[in-house]
Amino acid sequence: MKAHLLTIGDEILIGQIIDTNTAWMSRALNLAGIAVIGKSSVGDTAHAIMGGVRHAASQAQLVIMTGGLGPTKDDITKKTLATMFGSGMAFHQETHDRIAAYFHKIGRPLPDSMRDQATLPVLAEIMPNKVGSAPGMWFELEGIVYISLPGVPFEMEYLMDNEVLPRLKSRLSSRPMVHRTIQTVGEGETNIATRIAAFEDGLPEHIKLAYLPALGQVRLRLTGIWPGDVTTDAASILEKELDMKTAELERLIPDVVFGHGDITLQEALGQILTDKQLQFGTAESCTGGYVAHLITTVPGSSAYFPGAVVAYSYNMKTKLLGVNPLTLEHFGAVSQETVLEMAAGARTTLGVDIAVAISGIAGPGGSTPDKPIGTVWMAVDDGHRTLAVKHLFGRDREKNIQLSGVYALNLVRKFLLEQP
Amino acid sequence: MKAHLLTIGDEILIGQIIDTNTAWMSRALNLAGIAVIGKSSVGDTAHAIMGGVRHAASQAQLVIMTGGLGPTKDDITKKTLATMFGSGMAFHQETHDRIAAYFHKIGRPLPDSMRDQATLPVLAEIMPNKVGSAPGMWFELEGIVYISLPGVPFEMEYLMDNEVLPRLKSRLSSRPMVHRTIQTVGEGETNIATRIAAFEDGLPEHIKLAYLPALGQVRLRLTGIWPGDVTTDAASILEKELDMKTAELERLIPDVVFGHGDITLQEALGQILTDKQLQFGTAESCTGGYVAHLITTVPGSSAYFPGAVVAYSYNMKTKLLGVNPLTLEHFGAVSQETVLEMAAGARTTLGVDIAVAISGIAGPGGSTPDKPIGTVWMAVDDGHRTLAVKHLFGRDREKNIQLSGVYALNLVRKFLLEQP
Repeated sequence: MKAHLLTIGDEILIGQIIDTNTAWMSRALNLAGIAVIGKSSVGDTAHAIMGGVRHAASQAQLVIMTGGLGPTKDDITKKTLATMFGSGMAFHQETHDRIAAYFHKIGRPLPDSMRDQATLPVLAEIMPNKVGSAPGMWFELEGIVYISLPGVPFEMEYLMDNEVLPRLKSRLSSRPMVHRTIQTVGEGETNIATRIAAFEDGLPEHIKLAYLPALGQVRLRLTGIWPGDVTTDAASILEKELDMKTAELERLIPDVVFGHGDITLQEALGQILTDKQLQFGTAESCTGGYVAHLITTVPGSSAYFPGAVVAYSYNMKTKLLGVNPLTLEHFGAVSQETVLEMAAGARTTLGVDIAVAISGIAGPGGSTPDKPIGTVWMAVDDGHRTLAVKHLFGRDREKNIQLSGVYALNLVRKFLLEQP
Repeated sequence: MKAHLLTIGDEILIGQIIDTNTAWMSRALNLAGIAVIGKSSVGDTAHAIMGGVRHAASQAQLVIMTGGLGPTKDDITKKTLATMFGSGMAFHQETHDRIAAYFHKIGRPLPDSMRDQATLPVLAEIMPNKVGSAPGMWFELEGIVYISLPGVPFEMEYLMDNEVLPRLKSRLSSRPMVHRTIQTVGEGETNIATRIAAFEDGLPEHIKLAYLPALGQVRLRLTGIWPGDVTTDAASILEKELDMKTAELERLIPDVVFGHGDITLQEALGQILTDKQLQFGTAESCTGGYVAHLITTVPGSSAYFPGAVVAYSYNMKTKLLGVNPLTLEHFGAVSQETVLEMAAGARTTLGVDIAVAISGIAGPGGSTPDKPIGTVWMAVDDGHRTLAVKHLFGRDREKNIQLSGVYALNLVRKFLLEQP
């Protein structure tokens, strides 16, 4: 099955927002075995939307639209689709009740505009949106599936995960398809590709490898599609083959693999801390709380993470973490000496078994001739051993903060795994 | 003049990279008075490229393509365009010399593939690329301008700034277009729409209003297009009209507006703290460092933000923030009494003028019958006044953390603005 993604909204055409939805959707559809063969964007007019939908349908059997479903007047997708597909509109009690319940819960009166939100094309199958007001809609006409979703990323993602993908998967599954994902951290896509080139070249026709890079991390995904006639044991044979190939791949790059499937780095670290029954804390300067934030995105992290100190200023480093003012004066805040004292201080202040400290120059200000923007020191201390490393990232403040966070989590993870 | 932007390359279709080029190009073209009426993406096949170009040309008089110009074998844009437009290919000495000079300068031998890079369609006007190997190409056929640019962002930007935009501006006397954006926080799209319905209905034909929602925030964008014949002062008249409408809109919802243009909530708060010369700190439980992270994404935030305490456990709240254990025992960690003591304690521990404290139940665990998931208390304290509020967000952990962060920043912002 081939898909075309159509984003609707002037905000994308004028460049006010960068479209991240379609990249997310492409990856999700690819995982489900659906190829995206085109993407397009149109503005908030009926003429543009109709043109966009026709163009998309000329290319693909699946057209997924996002945007233009809000209760405000510039959102006209719903009416335009109803006109185009020759569908009447009707009040949809279930959607109205869902929206009313939400407003009741937050203690606000139900706005009049919500009656419009619950008035939907009768030809559409309604997909309930539990995280917003506009439901998803599923149309099928002349062998083509048209899906309309809200443009707000978490609403789109909710509907894709809970409604669209399960329906698509159940329609598609003729030949078994199996995915296996390996999560890596600390090595770039190009270096990994070089290290596993022979493996990749040796893969059979029916198994494909994809690289899914993020900042500091790369996911490697093996996808197998059963190549022959479908037998009852086809899926389990294919699964075994994929498991073997995954293990083979992992043996080539054991130093960078941190997990399988959808696990995050902070979850992998949390698992190790739980297994070893250790309490963990952070002392952060340039990351400004980002590492603590990553750790506490994991449900249940309070079991191993009692807290953190963000010590942005010299004074905080001294006062809250006990860093010697002379250390700061002699070596500077971004130095091996300082991060080691910060990590040791965090163990005492937070009363934890192991702590990581990060201090660096995120930019754009703060650099010196020998410490350019992107210089980041980090140290880990468990009361018996210490480890400090220096990184030189790039010039972008946000990326430096994020990369420092990822590398700090990985430093602790590797430190713990090296322990006897 | 209307433009369509076409990105060429499989990497966008599989979601491997997020397209930031077209947002940049849209803004640059808008500023030059050119409206982007569509965007699309196609893969690296001649069939897909030709289809994409034809579709674009059916909509617009200006088609700008990016991507598919590299020296690797999957980059086929140049040959496809030559075929489509019936153009022969010829060796282009100037381009070859420029590339050769570049390789000489970096001390590397000239690769064979660079001869191909200098072989170009004879019908194209060549736009020299001083920051990369592939030149830009400009075709004109039957009243339509086709421009092909490299997909590497800084090469595209270089060619747009130095070649494409100057040429387009000199050809055009387009109708000016002006945008104004108002940033709001704390009120949903629907409620805002209700409050400004009369304003929106009264807008003239040539001014449009768009709602751009994010978690806890909504941007309102007014776009005006000059309605009549273009005079020399058209742009400035339109700008004044938009400024008036923006001010009018802002007067309707002064309680939720926090800024204009691209400013973020954390930047707006940073500006107030700077103006008032106040030192600020955070004491975070359920947000786990997220608020400190938001604040420190702003360059220069160290001037007003010395640090923060993440106190996830009871013990940390007592030890680092001086919360009375009896308060925790009697009222619980998620209570007005506890967040007030946390905020007061943060002022002392961090030595700051004003502090905000957040404690809540992010989920999925930790709820009690009277404190469901999504219950969040936050308090602000400046040593003279205190303010504590309770919110009831939803059931999603990540959203609860993010909403708590946005509302906490806004609480401090409003608290400071209410001060004498």
